[in-house]
Amino acid sequence: MSISTLLFGRRLANREAEGRKIGAFEGVPAMGLDGLGSASYGPEAMLAVLAVVGAAGLGVVQPVTWAIVLLLAIVFFSYRQTIAAYPASGGSYTVARENLGLNTGLVAAAALMVDYMLNVAVGISAGVGALTSALPALHAYTLPLCLGILAIITVVNLRGTKESGLALALPTYLFIGSLFFILGYGVWRSWSGHAEPVVPPPGAAAGEATEAVTLWLIVRAFAAGCTAMTGVEAVSNGVSAFREPTVKHAHRTLTAIVVVLGTLLLGIAHLAQGYGILAMNQEQDGYQSVVSQVVGAVWGRDWLYYVTIGSVLAVLCLSANTSFVGFPRVCRQVAEDGYLPRAFALPGRRLVYTAGILFLAVGAGALLAVFGGITDRLIPLFAVGAFLSFTLSQAGMAQHWRRSAGGRADRTRLGVNGLGALATGLALIVILAAKFTEGAWLTVVVIPLTFILLRAVRRYYSSIESHILPEGLREVRLVEHQPPVFLVPLMRWDRLASRAVHAAVRLSPDVVALHLENLNGPDAGAEEGGLREEWRRQVELPARRAGVPVPRLIVEASPYRSLLAPTLRTMEALRGEKRGRPVVVVLSEFVGGRWWEVLMHTHRTKRLRRQLLRHGGPDLAVLILPWQLEAPETEEVLTEEEPVAAG
Amino acid sequence: MSISTLLFGRRLANREAEGRKIGAFEGVPAMGLDGLGSASYGPEAMLAVLAVVGAAGLGVVQPVTWAIVLLLAIVFFSYRQTIAAYPASGGSYTVARENLGLNTGLVAAAALMVDYMLNVAVGISAGVGALTSALPALHAYTLPLCLGILAIITVVNLRGTKESGLALALPTYLFIGSLFFILGYGVWRSWSGHAEPVVPPPGAAAGEATEAVTLWLIVRAFAAGCTAMTGVEAVSNGVSAFREPTVKHAHRTLTAIVVVLGTLLLGIAHLAQGYGILAMNQEQDGYQSVVSQVVGAVWGRDWLYYVTIGSVLAVLCLSANTSFVGFPRVCRQVAEDGYLPRAFALPGRRLVYTAGILFLAVGAGALLAVFGGITDRLIPLFAVGAFLSFTLSQAGMAQHWRRSAGGRADRTRLGVNGLGALATGLALIVILAAKFTEGAWLTVVVIPLTFILLRAVRRYYSSIESHILPEGLREVRLVEHQPPVFLVPLMRWDRLASRAVHAAVRLSPDVVALHLENLNGPDAGAEEGGLREEWRRQVELPARRAGVPVPRLIVEASPYRSLLAPTLRTMEALRGEKRGRPVVVVLSEFVGGRWWEVLMHTHRTKRLRRQLLRHGGPDLAVLILPWQLEAPETEEVLTEEEPVAAG
Repeated sequence: MSISTLLFGRRLANREAEGRKIGAFEGVPAMGLDGLGSASYGPEAMLAVLAVVGAAGLGVVQPVTWAIVLLLAIVFFSYRQTIAAYPASGGSYTVARENLGLNTGLVAAAALMVDYMLNVAVGISAGVGALTSALPALHAYTLPLCLGILAIITVVNLRGTKESGLALALPTYLFIGSLFFILGYGVWRSWSGHAEPVVPPPGAAAGEATEAVTLWLIVRAFAAGCTAMTGVEAVSNGVSAFREPTVKHAHRTLTAIVVVLGTLLLGIAHLAQGYGILAMNQEQDGYQSVVSQVVGAVWGRDWLYYVTIGSVLAVLCLSANTSFVGFPRVCRQVAEDGYLPRAFALPGRRLVYTAGILFLAVGAGALLAVFGGITDRLIPLFAVGAFLSFTLSQAGMAQHWRRSAGGRADRTRLGVNGLGALATGLALIVILAAKFTEGAWLTVVVIPLTFILLRAVRRYYSSIESHILPEGLREVRLVEHQPPVFLVPLMRWDRLASRAVHAAVRLSPDVVALHLENLNGPDAGAEEGGLREEWRRQVELPARRAGVPVPRLIVEASPYRSLLAPTLRTMEALRGEKRGRPVVVVLSEFVGGRWWEVLMHTHRTKRLRRQLLRHGGPDLAVLILPWQLEAPETEEVLTEEEPVAAG
Repeated sequence: MSISTLLFGRRLANREAEGRKIGAFEGVPAMGLDGLGSASYGPEAMLAVLAVVGAAGLGVVQPVTWAIVLLLAIVFFSYRQTIAAYPASGGSYTVARENLGLNTGLVAAAALMVDYMLNVAVGISAGVGALTSALPALHAYTLPLCLGILAIITVVNLRGTKESGLALALPTYLFIGSLFFILGYGVWRSWSGHAEPVVPPPGAAAGEATEAVTLWLIVRAFAAGCTAMTGVEAVSNGVSAFREPTVKHAHRTLTAIVVVLGTLLLGIAHLAQGYGILAMNQEQDGYQSVVSQVVGAVWGRDWLYYVTIGSVLAVLCLSANTSFVGFPRVCRQVAEDGYLPRAFALPGRRLVYTAGILFLAVGAGALLAVFGGITDRLIPLFAVGAFLSFTLSQAGMAQHWRRSAGGRADRTRLGVNGLGALATGLALIVILAAKFTEGAWLTVVVIPLTFILLRAVRRYYSSIESHILPEGLREVRLVEHQPPVFLVPLMRWDRLASRAVHAAVRLSPDVVALHLENLNGPDAGAEEGGLREEWRRQVELPARRAGVPVPRLIVEASPYRSLLAPTLRTMEALRGEKRGRPVVVVLSEFVGGRWWEVLMHTHRTKRLRRQLLRHGGPDLAVLILPWQLEAPETEEVLTEEEPVAAG
């Protein structure tokens, strides 16, 4: 079993694709981790903004959270309609392109791609950050830990969606179950009057008010809290990953994710106010996250606390996985339209879009490396892309309903999506204004650059197409042609030379062999004499006896020890002599061999092949005869691609 | 002008080789830097061994140095004879192989190669060590400095010997001139009674005697001092680099090097005793090298001191250059006999043996990196290889004279070389015994391993030769053959497809086109219908009209999205149908393009070409038709290889 089979599993057939599709149970972990994980850093980000007003901020928490949940509900109903209208794949790229035009679609795609990549970096760094604040000894290894987790997630995703769905189900459902239990218990306690405000450890909490509550502060708290909504669009992008009936499964998954997320946000907000929990400064000792404070205050620190916090860590790290499901699908759609390199549209051995997964992994790895794996530095860049694609998607859907037949149902749908577009658009403006100087400007620069890149890719492919598309193509000429001239470069007379001449003679009456002298430098001995003699004996005499055209041997000097220039010159001379007939150069190439054999050969033939193809002009072809020392393991190659028994 | 032209200069023709040859004036810097540079670390190594006996060691310095100079004289006369007898190239590899048999020759080659590589590392690290003890601020950058100097020397040598000879002449002759002047002045002062023992700074000198002078200590001092002789063999290895009359120029160069080296050794020994100079501990503050102490004591610290020490630094760093002249020549000889990969025998664009230079640079770089650029750790490994190759070379010469006619002159020569072999053999045993546990054991392990590797390379080439050499080769069959079957994989009908079918039809009446479905995964749309229609219109109809054999289109499914397996299966079927006729697969390959274009193509054709050549069986050939978007810069390629006007 090869290493790739061990890591990634056996190659899958096209017809096995249906079996790889997922339902709602696998869908929630596969597409909801991003959204659910946001529940832990969204409220934290909001409370951190409110920290400057001390305990006075607690009164703001619940109203702002309700505003966010309202926005979430609007987005939910919008996306339900999107999924139903675009069951093949309702990503904002498709929706915006089809309803608002190509360029808007590309902007949405660029926004999504940027946000997916940021989500991987933020999710992993937040998880590792939480882990290292629980185990301070690991703090020095933040970046290696981030990159290691990224590598594991990448391999899991290269194996394919279904396995990763199952592999992620346990922490997801543990996260939901334990948090629901503890939050429910806490709400019951606060309603029955048992909630007592916690006393934060000295120094860590921002108990002192340094500013007053202003509208701008509330706006900034809202913008920070909106990061809790990132990832909700994942389901609409990934509809095609669900099994039949896809819309039903996708709807169930989206409903489950949104309901759980909303409940978590409201529960955390309610308990934060009830227990008087404030955000702590992550750079000081004794730091605890908001979720950790809530769980500790409600339940205390026994095994359930550690199970809950452990599942939060796992979900945060794995929320990166959502991007690994969505990003390659977006790239594939864009690539199929010619705006990304074609490799993004080709499914790999496991039916996943390998190029997209690898590109995402490399990009997120670079982000982690540049920002040192620190969440706080990454968060301000985040959410701009998500809300831009929310807005474009909802606006596209509104346009969709406006254009369609126009029954009463459609007008309601237009209202829902129009409201969605308006709300997310407002939120986008708020987020941009609030976070611009903190880093959001970077996203504002990168998204247009990506847009320009996508268009440039398309331009490149168009120029290729105009070269090779069949417009004005004449039918294949079949009669008025002569066979090409064959040119066989010879070093010496051996089995390979004999085989090359033989192959040439089989294909054309015009065969010329070319021997270059002085290839090995000024001191090397000449082998010309022996070659001429062999040529006479093995080629010329038999040809004369048989009465067929006699192949010719040309000997040329190569004063600069190069194969290319004299071969090109000889070809030019032959073309003049033979009135523009095409030339085929015959080369014997060594193939196969173990890894070290590459050191044992001079690779002059391969270099000559490459250079001839590049510089030989349009009427040149190269005929390659392979030679190898050991029989190849062809059986193994064929077996891997043989259809396997079902099951 | 390309980057490589800027770095390495224009490509040189074979006939320009004569102009690249050197005389004695360039020969001393090119081949003598190693030997001359040794004059600074040889006496130092000897005095360091004697440090344990304090001032009592000073009495031993002159006798031991005289012994080393005597050995040097013996080696000098031996090598004079070697150069005269082997003017083509009298390296110990050639001499030992021709006179003592192949295996002995390979051992000598292995010893030489190891020693050359060590010499590069020791020379550069000693130079940088001296530099950093003069400028302590640079101490933290020892390894980067070492590798930077290595890179510069490598580029200079890739440009070719003559330039490097001139570039190195200035520091060499400055080194010789300034040291001769100061040593002469010092000897005159000590004879006229003006020499006063220097007072070493407290703590740095090993003034206290901790042991008594024993025979074993003298033997170890001798072994340490013998490192001063390394590099003397360089001239005999590089005879072919001299211009006509080569022997005369080589003799002059060798004489100059040995006389200067012997004089320096005796002068330093005389003054060390006269001024009571002892070796200091390099790891303590205030360290000064022996040469620095001698120059300071004789002349004081003015500008001449700094010029002298500067030239010592330069010569030490550049002594690595000797290896860059010798190593590639040894490798070339060994490669021409088939014991090293063939690339070592091919002269590059500047007529130097590029592969050898690069291998030496990489090996020495690895040594420097592993040993951190610290001379003290490298020195014990040194000299074993040099003395082993001295011994084998002299023993080979002795055998040479024993076998030859046997006149009186030859008997004298036998005596000289026999004495040389005996003396260097004894010195080798002494060195091995004295340094074995300090690191020389490593060389004792590496030299046999290299020997085994050389034999393995040769075995590999022999197995290839037995495959492709023409024994039992029949003459080329010219009559009883049918043209091969041509197989043209088609994605869709475009210009490239049309051209491929056209090329195939031109060469054979049996042409089969193969279209694979489902290549792009389960969701991708089929293009089969359009292709069939185009095929009928553009190929079948014209063929029927013209009354020629009609090419066939086969459509196959590729359930695993692979090109290889279905193509191989189709080939198998065709072979069965066509009774074993060879199959030629026609592929259109994209060539050229700027660096980023590699990302824009899926490279499926190239991968298919490689896999088919590997797995397609012996009766397969691949015909490549190139296509490109932009015209190649063929003019530039050809111009560079055009003979230039002389001058």
